Amino acid sequence: MSAPELALVLIGFGRVARRFVRLLDETSDRLAFACRIVGISTRRHGSVVDAAGVDGRRAAAVVEAGQSLDRLDPAPLPRSGLDALRSAADRAAGEAAQGRLVAIESTVLEIERGEPAVSHVKEALEGSMHVVTVNKGPIAFAYRELAALAGRVERMLLFEGVVMDGVPVFNLVRHTLPAVHVTGFRGVLNTTSNYVLSALERGQAFEPALREMQARGIAEADPSLDVDGWDAAAKTAALVNVLMGGAITPHQVQRTGIGGIAAADIRDAAARDRRIRLVASARRQGESVAARVEPEVLDRRDPLAALDDTENAVYLRTDLLGEIGIVQRSGDLTQTAYAVIADLSAIARGLATGVVR
Amino acid sequence: MSAPELALVLIGFGRVARRFVRLLDETSDRLAFACRIVGISTRRHGSVVDAAGVDGRRAAAVVEAGQSLDRLDPAPLPRSGLDALRSAADRAAGEAAQGRLVAIESTVLEIERGEPAVSHVKEALEGSMHVVTVNKGPIAFAYRELAALAGRVERMLLFEGVVMDGVPVFNLVRHTLPAVHVTGFRGVLNTTSNYVLSALERGQAFEPALREMQARGIAEADPSLDVDGWDAAAKTAALVNVLMGGAITPHQVQRTGIGGIAAADIRDAAARDRRIRLVASARRQGESVAARVEPEVLDRRDPLAALDDTENAVYLRTDLLGEIGIVQRSGDLTQTAYAVIADLSAIARGLATGVVR
Repeated sequence: MSAPELALVLIGFGRVARRFVRLLDETSDRLAFACRIVGISTRRHGSVVDAAGVDGRRAAAVVEAGQSLDRLDPAPLPRSGLDALRSAADRAAGEAAQGRLVAIESTVLEIERGEPAVSHVKEALEGSMHVVTVNKGPIAFAYRELAALAGRVERMLLFEGVVMDGVPVFNLVRHTLPAVHVTGFRGVLNTTSNYVLSALERGQAFEPALREMQARGIAEADPSLDVDGWDAAAKTAALVNVLMGGAITPHQVQRTGIGGIAAADIRDAAARDRRIRLVASARRQGESVAARVEPEVLDRRDPLAALDDTENAVYLRTDLLGEIGIVQRSGDLTQTAYAVIADLSAIARGLATGVVR
Repeated sequence: MSAPELALVLIGFGRVARRFVRLLDETSDRLAFACRIVGISTRRHGSVVDAAGVDGRRAAAVVEAGQSLDRLDPAPLPRSGLDALRSAADRAAGEAAQGRLVAIESTVLEIERGEPAVSHVKEALEGSMHVVTVNKGPIAFAYRELAALAGRVERMLLFEGVVMDGVPVFNLVRHTLPAVHVTGFRGVLNTTSNYVLSALERGQAFEPALREMQARGIAEADPSLDVDGWDAAAKTAALVNVLMGGAITPHQVQRTGIGGIAAADIRDAAARDRRIRLVASARRQGESVAARVEPEVLDRRDPLAALDDTENAVYLRTDLLGEIGIVQRSGDLTQTAYAVIADLSAIARGLATGVVR
């Protein structure tokens, strides 16, 4: 089995994608595949498509200097994400036909309909690309349809970074729990909310804690997505859709954010040896699934009560193995970027073993 | 890809193996493979080898009625485990050549040298069988040698049940964490010790708590393996050998059991808002690995302090993802039996995709 070379089209080139291109360099000696970037599309910093290969580190430096990627393009053009995908599919048609072209969707979550990310994923699959998305939108809003499309075109749709960064949740169930049914889950999935609640417990104020998460690149660009529970609701919908066979959107998750929690609530809970955490949960209810995100006052014995600061966890309820927890003790950009590498490894393994053709 | 049929030789037919044959029936409609038992070997209840197939449920009933398996054998013979493996290799040579013959080692852990389980695994691999072991011995005492042998004969050596029953630890790292290096770990791995410590906290006595674990089939037949830390040391050696590239045995794990812990120690810890847990850990120390099992007085904030009764967990330290925890919230026979099914699924997947020939 020789090391396959993957051709990559990056849709979105924010902090996660830029950390990814650097991490790819840093870990190249450990990976059983090589990569060539053939396109990068951004909303505000232009785009570049070049089948001969784009220097990822140089592209990151260009964007970080506030310049346009157009300067790296041999024949620059104004392009939307869809345009960039079409152009890459055209110029790397050979790789696409061989199952070696991969679109990486990392644009910002849009919480009304998950667009344009859903359309990006569709376009990529229709262009015979595999898709790795760290954007929650496609999985939270359209997983069933997109997974069916991926099956028809015989390409992989992977998304480990959507929940708990690179810590495996979806791959855990897919690769290590054959024949197990997931019947529900409970988790702390939004890092920013958990950090803010921890800060309130320490007597700090809400706003500075939130700003710190933004400065570290952890809070969403629009922090209301974190504070109002939308980020956790999107992750909940993704887990329900993938692990429990649901077909819901974040709008069907009953949702309460942490905005209404006052320092006094935190103190009252602490006085009773309890902690408030933003809990995401789902359970089967007849034919459907009841999903919710809301602050819960937890007994100290609850495993979710132990999660401080940037720790996340999800406890899956299963039929054969009881409750299994997976815990992420720290979350940062490297871990989200790693999720993309884990997904690319799965594609490379599929190519090397002939599962992907 | 059609569903492969696996032929199974069971070496050891205690509670775990008997629960396994029943679980195989209960889950057959979910599995992408079929199984035929061609041999069962026990220390005290005779043996049966029959290439035409042995009825697993009937065999379990025979043993549970205190009778000998010889009565199920068309031509009964006194046989050791090695004899049964040789006989099965001979009579199911076609399956062995096709990579469809699997030995399942579930004899009792022997803590001096891991024998005869190590020899069973060697014999099975040399007979072109895949091996699934839930006995810790082979992995704790001879992983490197056995893995090399498995590579040479192109057969799989799998052992998910060795640590935390069917909750994935080895498969988690193998299948979902490509390119990640495990640099150390901390865990609570022995259910019986943890249950006894929890009982002491509730004011119960040591001996009745231990007897309860034996009655539930969780404590080892020889409870000193649990109480003296040997079971945890064997699991620690297995984790070091597989995840950290070590080549140690349980005798190289610095080991203190829970036998010396008095009710007063537990009360003292509780008075300082602390808990005592039997902690297994390892970390790199220059070229080697320092591994230990010992009771530790833990701060309440330590994630291991949250583990009650039959809960287990291991927190892996990694280079790219920080610390990742995997938590088992309840452990029973079904979960250990499930580990065998998960490993068989991996073999069947290998066959279906042509990775195993």
